[in-house]
Amino acid sequence: MATPRTDLNADLGEGYGVWRLGDDEALLSVVTSANVACGFHAGDPAGLRRTCAAAVAAGVRIGAQVSYPDRVGFGRRFVDAAPDDLAADVIYQIGALDGIARSVGGRVDYVKPHGALYNTIVHKEDQARAVVAAVAAVDATLPLVTLPGSVAARFAREAGLRVIAEGFADRGYRSDGSLAPRGTEGAVLTDTAEICSRTVRMVTACEVVAVDGTVVSVDVDSICLHGDTPGAIEHARAVASALADAGVRLRSFLP
Amino acid sequence: MATPRTDLNADLGEGYGVWRLGDDEALLSVVTSANVACGFHAGDPAGLRRTCAAAVAAGVRIGAQVSYPDRVGFGRRFVDAAPDDLAADVIYQIGALDGIARSVGGRVDYVKPHGALYNTIVHKEDQARAVVAAVAAVDATLPLVTLPGSVAARFAREAGLRVIAEGFADRGYRSDGSLAPRGTEGAVLTDTAEICSRTVRMVTACEVVAVDGTVVSVDVDSICLHGDTPGAIEHARAVASALADAGVRLRSFLP
Amino acid sequence: MATPRTDLNADLGEGYGVWRLGDDEALLSVVTSANVACGFHAGDPAGLRRTCAAAVAAGVRIGAQVSYPDRVGFGRRFVDAAPDDLAADVIYQIGALDGIARSVGGRVDYVKPHGALYNTIVHKEDQARAVVAAVAAVDATLPLVTLPGSVAARFAREAGLRVIAEGFADRGYRSDGSLAPRGTEGAVLTDTAEICSRTVRMVTACEVVAVDGTVVSVDVDSICLHGDTPGAIEHARAVASALADAGVRLRSFLP
Amino acid sequence: MATPRTDLNADLGEGYGVWRLGDDEALLSVVTSANVACGFHAGDPAGLRRTCAAAVAAGVRIGAQVSYPDRVGFGRRFVDAAPDDLAADVIYQIGALDGIARSVGGRVDYVKPHGALYNTIVHKEDQARAVVAAVAAVDATLPLVTLPGSVAARFAREAGLRVIAEGFADRGYRSDGSLAPRGTEGAVLTDTAEICSRTVRMVTACEVVAVDGTVVSVDVDSICLHGDTPGAIEHARAVASALADAGVRLRSFLP
Repeated sequence: MATPRTDLNADLGEGYGVWRLGDDEALLSVVTSANVACGFHAGDPAGLRRTCAAAVAAGVRIGAQVSYPDRVGFGRRFVDAAPDDLAADVIYQIGALDGIARSVGGRVDYVKPHGALYNTIVHKEDQARAVVAAVAAVDATLPLVTLPGSVAARFAREAGLRVIAEGFADRGYRSDGSLAPRGTEGAVLTDTAEICSRTVRMVTACEVVAVDGTVVSVDVDSICLHGDTPGAIEHARAVASALADAGVRLRSFLP
Repeated sequence: MATPRTDLNADLGEGYGVWRLGDDEALLSVVTSANVACGFHAGDPAGLRRTCAAAVAAGVRIGAQVSYPDRVGFGRRFVDAAPDDLAADVIYQIGALDGIARSVGGRVDYVKPHGALYNTIVHKEDQARAVVAAVAAVDATLPLVTLPGSVAARFAREAGLRVIAEGFADRGYRSDGSLAPRGTEGAVLTDTAEICSRTVRMVTACEVVAVDGTVVSVDVDSICLHGDTPGAIEHARAVASALADAGVRLRSFLP
Repeated sequence: MATPRTDLNADLGEGYGVWRLGDDEALLSVVTSANVACGFHAGDPAGLRRTCAAAVAAGVRIGAQVSYPDRVGFGRRFVDAAPDDLAADVIYQIGALDGIARSVGGRVDYVKPHGALYNTIVHKEDQARAVVAAVAAVDATLPLVTLPGSVAARFAREAGLRVIAEGFADRGYRSDGSLAPRGTEGAVLTDTAEICSRTVRMVTACEVVAVDGTVVSVDVDSICLHGDTPGAIEHARAVASALADAGVRLRSFLP
Repeated sequence: MATPRTDLNADLGEGYGVWRLGDDEALLSVVTSANVACGFHAGDPAGLRRTCAAAVAAGVRIGAQVSYPDRVGFGRRFVDAAPDDLAADVIYQIGALDGIARSVGGRVDYVKPHGALYNTIVHKEDQARAVVAAVAAVDATLPLVTLPGSVAARFAREAGLRVIAEGFADRGYRSDGSLAPRGTEGAVLTDTAEICSRTVRMVTACEVVAVDGTVVSVDVDSICLHGDTPGAIEHARAVASALADAGVRLRSFLP
């Protein structure tokens, strides 16, 4: 039987100018993939360059965490962007971060949409198509990290892109495999032991217990960890330890 | 005797969102190199993508017209940026435009700083070093377009970058080969015939008559044309025609 | 019988930095109310100050044309802003433009939301409430210009704000009094004579022929003219002339 | 003999969106004047509104902390802005913050330029004139907080503005009364007892010991405290206590 394995990803480079957010150094010691901001929701060029240099030094893969252009809203607000505008925004961000990464010996290895854009392309077809078209246009070998079952995942496969299915260590699931909306019962987990055991089960047994108690099949390539909330780093470390203890090999989804 | 040749460059892609500036289509029928804005002084991603697609279709080379981050001032105001910040800004812009260009079948072929940054790195050493270091870090094969004799040109050569020396069709020169500052007598030429004859002499005889009447040696690889003032397109076309009539071959400085 | 009267409003100050849009001077010779941009979708402070000075000189009232923060999208894209954020954005913009206007001898006399925000608060309750609360918080004597029948109009009246009902000279109406969506048959009128006769009928007889041929009652305080499309100035002048010829007194809705 | 008195001021509202900076609540318990950011170097409208509401609740005066438009550089970089542009930027910011403040029961009570702008108008005449003209144009009763002896102070007095001379609790002075440049010996004080004793002497005896040991006369209306460095809040509290213990009355320079 093959050794179970997974990738661990988290958001990095989300400061701006003098403003700091999250603990990039701590996260780099845990994750195998760093979703680095690209300047549209967070990240100034000099800060992004430091983050990319640290990721390269840590041997962590760099993903372009593309966003709506909404710094004041941290990319958490839906923007009704026209597909052509959105596609160009995504391309611009991938290119910008790739330039930054290359200048310190790295490169953009994958794309993970951020915040409201991530959530929107789970279901909104025109924007999902735009994001997929953007990735395909700039470099069709870049994998797209998205929620399993999203329309973005479907369009990406149709366009020949590699899709990385993402699971969430600290989020509740519904019986259809979608995430329980924030604000609803069980949507966010806070107990470290529960977060760890669920993640191990998700990775080794490909299943998760939904908020209604049903056992749902999930097949994920990467686990999303959060780094910007109190205790998040501790949760991230605990999840990584629990996976390692369960014999899971932690490494990037890239060769 | 070798056929004289030169490159003709102009600024493109300098609109923003709904706002238009200059006549990209007309310029693309004249120039061999397009200095395309990168979003910091002008240019939104969707507009830049259209400009790059048009440049690719016209067979015109694309340069990254990097700027201080100053959209409201159109990059025309000196910003006392720290070298590390400036270098990262330049890298980010080159990468962003390269992503945009690649998505439409092109690439960034060279770098030309814009406005106040262009003028500043003629003399200010720390910022000149930062720009040169940025280009070298992202892709050391990218030529840097700058004023002959600038400190940027010197640092670029020392760093192993190719330097493209630029002449100005419609600007007056001082006897030391520098440009006569705007607002001084003879700083800006407006007579089409004079602009054309000076440009032909600059390219074919490598000399220009300075504002004080002395004849100055100049050796330029590219002629800068302007496109955003009344009559600019007509001047650009006239210069191109005059050069062609004088037997000058118009083509990019790139292979 | 009372002399019929109406206000004529148009959008002004919608350039940004070097970029120009519309013909402010021409519009100021036609309208009685200028909806001046506030910097969030268009308008840099120096340009806004020139626009306000021209409006003051022309005796035209100044309205704060508040918008989502979306310069690259010109405020034409819905942004899913939280009510508290939106309210603060509206307050900030009213204050900023009032400072600019006061510095040249004017003041903000009313508020008219722009673009996607205008359309959104016709129906979306939380954002409509936020806009109304913002106006009430900064100065409850400021009238709000909105579409008759909008939820914003209802909330504004409930909050004690004066509501200015707006009619559109060049837009088609549906039989329920709402605007025919752009892109549908008859949504935008282009024939000058028709635009003029409809506007005169709207102001003098309080009725308009809908796209389905029914005659709809409308009661508007101000007519919106457009200034940024080809021929718009001519239409605006023609409408003003037609109204004057029909004995309509053109003046601000303010004392 | 009159009771000695002084105002204590500090910078507040310097977060942006999700990003926090400084401890506004703690500072509001110490200072009598809050220099609130206006959105150009820091401060989003919703955050500024919360800061202003807290200042109003604490009975602390609100000043407009106007800046160059440079969020990524936090307003710490000189921008070579044309006087008309700078003046309009200052007016826009004062108006915006005044709108925000009025919406929560306060108002802008004074103006204190931020960062590089503060330093620049100590000596650069065209920008100093622009800032003074801006304040005078928007509300000539607003005091301007600046360094004693600055050209801004001189122009402000000539324009009929009230000037608030500011002293620094934790900065070294040169024998001419100017601040020792950061990076030079003694430019920044870190010993709490020394900071306190110097401040008390500055306020009660109107003198300070310069870095070269000479005793310099100073006559200041307000003491600037810092809040965004480690230990800053403790220093601020210690200074306030030391002044109170020395019989100094702490209150705003406004009636």
